[in-house]
Amino acid sequence: MVTAVVRKGLLLKADPITAAFRDEVKGSLAACSRPPKLVGILATTAAPSKNYAEFTRKQCEEMGVDFVLKKVGAAASPNLGEGEGVEEAIIEANEDSSIHGIMVYFPIFGVQQDHYLQQVVSPLKDVEGLHFKFHYNLYHNIRFIEPKSLLASLPPASQPPTVTESEEPPAGTVKSIIPCTPLAIVKCLEFVGVYNKILPYGDRAYGKTITVINRSEVVGRPLAALLANDGARVISVDIDSIQEYTKRPRISPNDSSESATAQRYHPRHIVHPSNLTLQECLAISDVVVSAVPSPTYKVKTEWLKDGCICLNVAADKNFEKDVRDKASIYIPAVGKVTIFMLLRNLLRLQQYQEL
Amino acid sequence: MVTAVVRKGLLLKADPITAAFRDEVKGSLAACSRPPKLVGILATTAAPSKNYAEFTRKQCEEMGVDFVLKKVGAAASPNLGEGEGVEEAIIEANEDSSIHGIMVYFPIFGVQQDHYLQQVVSPLKDVEGLHFKFHYNLYHNIRFIEPKSLLASLPPASQPPTVTESEEPPAGTVKSIIPCTPLAIVKCLEFVGVYNKILPYGDRAYGKTITVINRSEVVGRPLAALLANDGARVISVDIDSIQEYTKRPRISPNDSSESATAQRYHPRHIVHPSNLTLQECLAISDVVVSAVPSPTYKVKTEWLKDGCICLNVAADKNFEKDVRDKASIYIPAVGKVTIFMLLRNLLRLQQYQEL
Repeated sequence: MVTAVVRKGLLLKADPITAAFRDEVKGSLAACSRPPKLVGILATTAAPSKNYAEFTRKQCEEMGVDFVLKKVGAAASPNLGEGEGVEEAIIEANEDSSIHGIMVYFPIFGVQQDHYLQQVVSPLKDVEGLHFKFHYNLYHNIRFIEPKSLLASLPPASQPPTVTESEEPPAGTVKSIIPCTPLAIVKCLEFVGVYNKILPYGDRAYGKTITVINRSEVVGRPLAALLANDGARVISVDIDSIQEYTKRPRISPNDSSESATAQRYHPRHIVHPSNLTLQECLAISDVVVSAVPSPTYKVKTEWLKDGCICLNVAADKNFEKDVRDKASIYIPAVGKVTIFMLLRNLLRLQQYQEL
Repeated sequence: MVTAVVRKGLLLKADPITAAFRDEVKGSLAACSRPPKLVGILATTAAPSKNYAEFTRKQCEEMGVDFVLKKVGAAASPNLGEGEGVEEAIIEANEDSSIHGIMVYFPIFGVQQDHYLQQVVSPLKDVEGLHFKFHYNLYHNIRFIEPKSLLASLPPASQPPTVTESEEPPAGTVKSIIPCTPLAIVKCLEFVGVYNKILPYGDRAYGKTITVINRSEVVGRPLAALLANDGARVISVDIDSIQEYTKRPRISPNDSSESATAQRYHPRHIVHPSNLTLQECLAISDVVVSAVPSPTYKVKTEWLKDGCICLNVAADKNFEKDVRDKASIYIPAVGKVTIFMLLRNLLRLQQYQEL
């Protein structure tokens, strides 16, 4: 009698992924003349925000970062409304030179008014990277910036394609700040080998097909752009449509016209509508990232490509219980990685404030 | 036998309201060394956007403004996606010094990505006043700005209360740009006498109670702030909640404490949650503005205060057919006023670009 051996994919939690960043942040902090000060602004009574605020405090204390939780509105008093006073608290923190970084526990009012508040945070203190300026840089694959450009309202004039051969910023420039959650996801994918370090910087995800389910401005769209800027073929899925993000338009390899040659390598991604169904996308995807804020949404395990890598970003579980029957690696949560991205951004911004 | 005479309220269309602005814009254009150039960017095949683009063209041609309609994405070719190329078109227009103003026909991608695009438009060319910078100034009642602040990313440091006694900007400053639709509504309310010119500038809506149904970042919230900054008691209604915007917190007139005295007159509005129901709000409202994007939503005529003023901002009719049985004045649409606000902004921005 032959017994089939059922091999399950690897369940990968955040701790091993964060280890290198923990060391990096510890080293940077040890080199600081004074520890940076982060203020967290809590304006609602929502349990996930309260928990995340506590988690930030714990991580900061453990690492030796000076963390202050500022409670306003309903978080401060039952007599105040949800979000009351949050804009004033942000402005006060912007103007307080003892504060190096500001994070705000969203959602507060809903996407539109929250987006307004994200612009009120000074780009010089925006550890979460939610300011328009950082999204613009990300979408345009502007990796290095002059520190003083953080004080200018206009996006930099459109630039001629620059090939980013180096990870290190050219003289006079610093790294742009990348939104924390998409960056944490990229770091998870680097950890599990989706990024190939043999390839040149800025092209290390070339050859990989990645489906990203969610196209919000906070997670899905910046993530799709980041991955495509790094060379991946990205399939971006939301309720209404499926799009492809890629640096390389599908041009016949036999087409030697000038425009075809010019388009074959782009420093920034381009977006096409796709005719694929979700099932067809999943069948060809090496990686599936899901960030759907719904307890009932599930990616069907039977649609996954055998041996793919799955990453859940939502607070709810977007993958079925048996996901590891198909996935070679399953990462159930990225929150712990995100907080280290935030601390790295804090350390960078502290430096930029001194330039 | 006695016959009751049924008196209907006045139906007020936009033409008489626009007359003064038409003259003002004509005068300003006659004084221009060259007419300003406005580019309209159409990126979708949506009929309302196409119609509004045609309407802009007609109005510009009639007034002698140089208008160019730039079609991109699905508006340019059936082979392109909705919105494809719109960001590139905005950046090109930002960098083209022959263009003085840019308007983009929204919606394109949905509120989040559209909000991103609104930040890509240079504040120096943003005739619609949709940039974060102008919303920030509006919410903070910053009416006059230094032209160079349009090039800075950081909002101005929070300012001590300045009483705006004059309509004219102090030396070295210019008027901030106000979002077109909320401004057009204010101009309609000025026309029908809701603003009292005997009162000082910045307080001319004092004594009026105004219900605004809609709290979007494009219409309802900026409108509520504008009206409250001008002294009105504003009741802001959306699906989830009812809030009050006012300059004057309800403090007992007998409270002579320092904080009560300080709070009695504020240069900018404050927001409170309200316990009133919509029916209770309407019963006390001198003015009702509705901007609900739904063909089925209707403000109940029976709930209106007798003799109130009603203004419909939505593309759909938000008031019932018999609204003038209760309303003393009913303004069914503001689009024609909006276009004149846009042309005034264009003329201002053309001047600011030369400073």
